[in-house]
Amino acid sequence: MKNTFGTSVCTTVFGESHGPAVGVIIDGLAPGIDVDTELISSQLKKRRPSGKTDTPRVENDNYQILSGVFNGKTTGTPIAIVIPNENTKSKDYNYGVARPAHADYTAYMKYHGYEDYRGGGHFSGRVTAGLVAGGAIAISALKGLGISIGTHILSCKDATDTPFNEVEKEISLLQGKQFPVINDSSEEKITNAILKAREANDSIGGKIETAIVGMPAGVGEPWFDSVESILSHALFSIGGIKGVEFGIGSEFSNCLGSQANDKFRYENGQVVTETNNNGGINGGITNGMPIIFKCTVKPTPSISLEQDTVNFLTKENTKIEIKGRHDPAIIRRICVVVDSICALTVCDLLAQRYGTDVFLKGIK
Amino acid sequence: MKNTFGTSVCTTVFGESHGPAVGVIIDGLAPGIDVDTELISSQLKKRRPSGKTDTPRVENDNYQILSGVFNGKTTGTPIAIVIPNENTKSKDYNYGVARPAHADYTAYMKYHGYEDYRGGGHFSGRVTAGLVAGGAIAISALKGLGISIGTHILSCKDATDTPFNEVEKEISLLQGKQFPVINDSSEEKITNAILKAREANDSIGGKIETAIVGMPAGVGEPWFDSVESILSHALFSIGGIKGVEFGIGSEFSNCLGSQANDKFRYENGQVVTETNNNGGINGGITNGMPIIFKCTVKPTPSISLEQDTVNFLTKENTKIEIKGRHDPAIIRRICVVVDSICALTVCDLLAQRYGTDVFLKGIK
Amino acid sequence: MKNTFGTSVCTTVFGESHGPAVGVIIDGLAPGIDVDTELISSQLKKRRPSGKTDTPRVENDNYQILSGVFNGKTTGTPIAIVIPNENTKSKDYNYGVARPAHADYTAYMKYHGYEDYRGGGHFSGRVTAGLVAGGAIAISALKGLGISIGTHILSCKDATDTPFNEVEKEISLLQGKQFPVINDSSEEKITNAILKAREANDSIGGKIETAIVGMPAGVGEPWFDSVESILSHALFSIGGIKGVEFGIGSEFSNCLGSQANDKFRYENGQVVTETNNNGGINGGITNGMPIIFKCTVKPTPSISLEQDTVNFLTKENTKIEIKGRHDPAIIRRICVVVDSICALTVCDLLAQRYGTDVFLKGIK
Amino acid sequence: MKNTFGTSVCTTVFGESHGPAVGVIIDGLAPGIDVDTELISSQLKKRRPSGKTDTPRVENDNYQILSGVFNGKTTGTPIAIVIPNENTKSKDYNYGVARPAHADYTAYMKYHGYEDYRGGGHFSGRVTAGLVAGGAIAISALKGLGISIGTHILSCKDATDTPFNEVEKEISLLQGKQFPVINDSSEEKITNAILKAREANDSIGGKIETAIVGMPAGVGEPWFDSVESILSHALFSIGGIKGVEFGIGSEFSNCLGSQANDKFRYENGQVVTETNNNGGINGGITNGMPIIFKCTVKPTPSISLEQDTVNFLTKENTKIEIKGRHDPAIIRRICVVVDSICALTVCDLLAQRYGTDVFLKGIK
Repeated sequence: MKNTFGTSVCTTVFGESHGPAVGVIIDGLAPGIDVDTELISSQLKKRRPSGKTDTPRVENDNYQILSGVFNGKTTGTPIAIVIPNENTKSKDYNYGVARPAHADYTAYMKYHGYEDYRGGGHFSGRVTAGLVAGGAIAISALKGLGISIGTHILSCKDATDTPFNEVEKEISLLQGKQFPVINDSSEEKITNAILKAREANDSIGGKIETAIVGMPAGVGEPWFDSVESILSHALFSIGGIKGVEFGIGSEFSNCLGSQANDKFRYENGQVVTETNNNGGINGGITNGMPIIFKCTVKPTPSISLEQDTVNFLTKENTKIEIKGRHDPAIIRRICVVVDSICALTVCDLLAQRYGTDVFLKGIK
Repeated sequence: MKNTFGTSVCTTVFGESHGPAVGVIIDGLAPGIDVDTELISSQLKKRRPSGKTDTPRVENDNYQILSGVFNGKTTGTPIAIVIPNENTKSKDYNYGVARPAHADYTAYMKYHGYEDYRGGGHFSGRVTAGLVAGGAIAISALKGLGISIGTHILSCKDATDTPFNEVEKEISLLQGKQFPVINDSSEEKITNAILKAREANDSIGGKIETAIVGMPAGVGEPWFDSVESILSHALFSIGGIKGVEFGIGSEFSNCLGSQANDKFRYENGQVVTETNNNGGINGGITNGMPIIFKCTVKPTPSISLEQDTVNFLTKENTKIEIKGRHDPAIIRRICVVVDSICALTVCDLLAQRYGTDVFLKGIK
Repeated sequence: MKNTFGTSVCTTVFGESHGPAVGVIIDGLAPGIDVDTELISSQLKKRRPSGKTDTPRVENDNYQILSGVFNGKTTGTPIAIVIPNENTKSKDYNYGVARPAHADYTAYMKYHGYEDYRGGGHFSGRVTAGLVAGGAIAISALKGLGISIGTHILSCKDATDTPFNEVEKEISLLQGKQFPVINDSSEEKITNAILKAREANDSIGGKIETAIVGMPAGVGEPWFDSVESILSHALFSIGGIKGVEFGIGSEFSNCLGSQANDKFRYENGQVVTETNNNGGINGGITNGMPIIFKCTVKPTPSISLEQDTVNFLTKENTKIEIKGRHDPAIIRRICVVVDSICALTVCDLLAQRYGTDVFLKGIK
Repeated sequence: MKNTFGTSVCTTVFGESHGPAVGVIIDGLAPGIDVDTELISSQLKKRRPSGKTDTPRVENDNYQILSGVFNGKTTGTPIAIVIPNENTKSKDYNYGVARPAHADYTAYMKYHGYEDYRGGGHFSGRVTAGLVAGGAIAISALKGLGISIGTHILSCKDATDTPFNEVEKEISLLQGKQFPVINDSSEEKITNAILKAREANDSIGGKIETAIVGMPAGVGEPWFDSVESILSHALFSIGGIKGVEFGIGSEFSNCLGSQANDKFRYENGQVVTETNNNGGINGGITNGMPIIFKCTVKPTPSISLEQDTVNFLTKENTKIEIKGRHDPAIIRRICVVVDSICALTVCDLLAQRYGTDVFLKGIK
C-alpha cells in the first residue's frame, strides 16, 4: 500500500520537501473526537527545528484541515490536513551526485530520474509534519480511552538519559517538554554530545525509548500481525530508524529463560507481571502491561565533511561536501514523530479489535 | 489481515500444535516455478528437532501439496500444503495456569477461553513447519533470479560465530549445514552454551544474522512499505524474535555520521558501497548491496524450573513447573524459519515491483 | 489479494477440479461460534449435483476441519477445511482447444501453459465446495445476531418464481428446500425449462434473487467500500454471474425519482421505508431494511453442440464438441454458493464495524 | 480500506460538499507519465454542471496539484490534488429530516450525528471532482499503452442512444463530446426526457454503457479479484449506480448457451471472439476483446415534490420538499466519473500484473 498504513484507521502521507505542501489523510477514525488545535500546534512545535541542535530551516507549519472535521470534532470521514512548504530555499542542486546513506541513488533507481530530488523530495523528514499533525488527533482519541504514549532520548553516543521506570508519570512529564528526556539533567549532556558533532561538521546517532500505557490485554495477532510486527512496520517507515527492540530487546540474547521470563501475579484483581522484560507483549498480543520499545536512530547522513561518492548520471566516482541547512542529530525531533505514528497505529489496532466506534463508545 | 501476509505474493498459515495438521497457502507466486520436493524435505529437516539441543518431540513432516502444483511446477494458483501432526502426546493440560512469557494468558484475553490451548495451540512454533515448506518454493523462485538468503547463529550468550563477510559464499555454505554457523568451530561453543542451560533446567537466547544477496536496486517504498518495514513485519511474527536491526543496527547509536555513512563508488560499472553499514537499504529502498540484518531471539519461555504465575481461571497466584518436551534454545531451528519467511517476503516485494510473472520472465 | 477476500473476516480458497482437494481458510471469525456439522453437510448437499437438472459427477464432500475448531466451537484462529476430490474421471483432455466462454484461453494467457487445465482447474465450480463449507460457519455466526440470508431462482428464461415479499418467512422456508423457489409450483416450470435445454444439448441461464434480513442500520462506507461494492465484489467472483443489481435494479432506469425514492416512516419506534426499491442501502450504507439484490447467471458454457473455436497451441481455428459430465444449468446449485459468500461477506462487514468479538458479544 | 481503493495504484478521496475542499491522492502510479493539465481541465469541465439538464451550482474547479508531479510529469510518489469548494451557498439545513433515498439517515446511524450534513457532506457527488482530476492522469497513463475508455448514455427512460458497435472509433468520438452519446441525434431525445422530469419537479434515471479497448489478455484473477469484481467494486462506490452488468448482462438470463457463448477464432494472428457477449472477460480474466458493461443509474433522489419522511432527531414522521440547486438527472455527468474511476482501476490491474513501471516500460 506504499504511502498508506493501517487497516481500520488508515494513514496516508504525501508531499515533497520543496513542493507546494506536505500532508496527511487519516481515514476511519471514529466520529466525535475532539480536534484539539492547540495540541496539533504544540506537537508540530516539538517537531520543528529549534535551538542549537537543529537545522536553521524553520517552517511555520500553518496547517489547514480540509475535511473530516466539523464543529471542532471528527466526522468519521477522511481527515485531510495540508501543511504548506513556505521556507524552501531555491538553490542549485547538484543532481546526480549521490549523498552517501541518503536515498538519492535508490530514488533514482526506483523512479528513473523523474523523482523530485530537491531537498530529498518525498524522502525528506519534512513529510513527518503531516504525520505529527494527524497523530495529534489520534493522541486525543486515545486519551479518551486512558491510553498515553511518550518517547524520550535514551542515549546519544555516551550521553544517556534514565530509562522509563514510573511510566505513566514520566509520559505525563514528557508531554510538557520540548527536549524529551526523563531526567532534566540529561538535556545538557545530550545537547553537548550533539554540538560536539556539529562542531566537527559531523552528525550523531542514538537511541530513543517509547512507552504506551493503558493498553487493554488481548490486542494483536499471533501470526503476521503481532503487535511487534505492526509497530515495527510503522516505525521502520521513519527515515533514520535502523533498529527496533521490544522490552529488554538485545539483552534477551544474554539472558537465561529464568531471567527473561516475566512472572505473572494478581495485583488489585488485575493480572500484572513482576518485571516487564517482554515489553507488554506475549505471543504478539498485549498483556496489559506498558508496551515498551527502543529504536536505534542512525546519525543524520547529511554532514559537511567531504565524502567519496558517485555521480549516477555521469557514471563517475566523485566527491561531495553537503552544504545547506541540516540537523546534526534528528534524535530530539524524531521523538514526537514516533509518538504520532504509534498513536495512529494503536488507534488502528483498537478499531480493528473493538470496532470503529471504540473511541466514542469505549472498550467493552 | 491476521494470518495472511503479503500483497502480490501472499502467505497464509493455519493450524494448531495438537490439532490434525498445520499448513500454509502461498498465493500469487508465478506459474512455472520448479517445486523441488527434495529442497522442501531438506528445509523441513533443518527445522525439525535434532540432536542434543532440541526438544525430543520429532514430527515426520509428511507434507502433502493439495493444490497449485501440476507436473512438478507451480500453476500460478494458490499452493496449499498440509502437514499432519502425528506425534502429539495426549496429556493433562493444566489449563488456566499461565506459563510465564508464553501466550497462554494473552490468548485467553483474546479468545475468551475458546482457544485450543494444547501445546500452545496456534501460537506454537509447530506452525512454522508450514512456512518452511512454502518458503522452500519461494527459495526456488528466487534462485532463478540469482537471489539467495542465509541465516546463521551469531551469538548465544557468550558463544559467538563470525559475522557475514564474504556473503554469497557463506550463504552457499550455510545451505548445506544442519547447524547454521559460518565458522565450523562455533558449533561446539554454541552447543555447549545451550547444553549448559538445559542442564540447569533453563533456556537461553541469542542473536542470528541474515543476508540476502542478489537483490536489484530500487525495490521498496519511502513511507510505510520500506524494505525494513516489510521485513521486520514478517520477522516479528515469528515467536521469540524481540529485536530486529538492519546493517550495523544498534551500533549506529554510537557512531558519527562520518563513520556510519556508506561511501558509494563504481566497481565494474556497478554502483557499490565501500562499507555496508546500512545493510543494503537507503531511504527504505534497496541499493543493490546485500541486505543484512540481525534478530534477537529470546530464551525459550518453557523452562522446568519452578516459576511464580497466576491461574487466570481461578484468579489466584500460583506456581508452575513446566514439564514435557521443550527446546532449551530455538536459535538453531529458527534460522531456517527466518530464511523461509524472508524468501516469501522478498518474492512479494519483487512481484509488486516487477509484476507477477517476474519469476518466469526475469527482472527487466 | 487474488484468492483471499475480506478485511476483518478473510476467506481464502484453493484447489483445482482434478487435484487432490479443494478447500477454504476462514480467518478472523470470532471464537465461540458453534460449528454445526449438520448444517455444513446440508449446505454441501444443496450444492451437490442432484436430480435431473445437474451434472452426474457427484462428490461425497467428505470435508475435514484441520484447524480453528476446538470442542465444537470456533477458536478465533484460522479455520481450515479441506474437501478431497474423489470422483475425478481421468480422461484425455484436448488441451489447447479453447471451450467457448470458458476460461481455457484466458488461463493460458495468464498462466502461460502451466495451469492445471483438467476439468477447468482452479476455475472450476468445484472450488465453491470450500466456500459453502466455510459459509455454513458464517451462517451460524450470523444466526446468533438474528441475521439470515436466502437466495432463490427468480427466473430461468421464461419460467419464473415469485419475488421476495415476506422476506423473513420466505428465507426460513428456503432453508429447507433442495430446489430453492419461493412458490413451490415454480419448481416444475423451471425444471422443465432446464430439461428442455438439456434435450437440445444446450444450456440455459437465469436470474436469482437474494435477501439478507436483520442487518443493523449504519454498516458500510460512502466511498469504495459501499455495501454494494463489497457484495458485488464477492458475487462477481462466482463464475457465471454476469450482472448484479440492488433493489429494483434495472428498473431504476425507467423510473422517476418520485417513483423510485423510498419514503421513510416510523413503525414501532423504528425507522422503516414504505417501499424497498433501494434494497436496504442508501449512500452505500445499510438502512436497516432487508438487503435485496438480483444476480444474472449466464448459461453454463459447456454444451455438447459443436462450436467454432481455436486451438491456442497449434494456433489454428478448429471445432469442439464438449463431452463429459456437465450441468445444463447451474442456477439451482449457485443459490447456496451465493448464500455462503454473502454470509462470509456480511460477517466481515460486521466485524469491521463492531469489532472482532461481535459474534460473541452482540451488536452494541 | 474505506476511502482508498486499489492494490498497486491506490486512489484515496476526501472532502465534503460544503467544507473547504475536496481532493484525491493517487499513489503508486509510475513515474514519467505526462500530466496533461488541459486534459484534467477538460475532464473536470465534462463533470461540471452545464446546460439545462444540470444543477445551477457551478464550481470553477480550480484544482491544485500539491505533490507527486515535477517538471510536468509524475514522480512516482503520491499525487495529491485539491479542489477548493468556492460556490457553497450557506443556508439553513433542516438537519434531522431525512431526504428519501439519500444518505442522511444512514449517515446519522453511522456517524451518530457528527457527520457534516451540509449538502450531503462526504456523500455528495462533489467528491467525484477529485476522482475526475486524478482519473485524467490515469487516462494519460493508459493512453501510452494504447488503452482507451469511453462511456455514453445508453438510455434515459424511453429515450435511447445506439449501443457500442465500432468501439475504438466511438470512444474516440465520445472524448470530444460534452453530452456523451454515440448517435448525435440522441442528445435531443435524452435532453427532452430529462427536461420533462424537471418540469414535473421530478428526476429521472437511466443506463450508461462503458467500453475499455486495448486491454491485453490475461489480466484478472479467477477468484475474488475477477475483473468483474474489481470493476464493480469501483463502480458501485459511485452514488446513484445500482446495477452493473457485463457484456449482454441481463440478457444472459434469457439465453441458451449456444446463443451466449462467444466463439473464438484467429484474426490476423490474434485470438478474437465472433460476438462479445461476455464483455471481454472469461473466468474473471480479460480475453483481449473490449471490456463492455452497463450501469443502471437511479433517478437523483433530490426532487422538489413533497415526500413523506421522518425526522430522526425528533423521532417523528414528517414531510419534506427539497429546495435548492439539484440535477434532475446525473446521467450526463456520471459518464466522465465512470471513465475516471475505470481508468484508475485499470491502471491498478495493469500495475499488479506487469509491475509498477508498466506505464514507463510497456507491457512485456
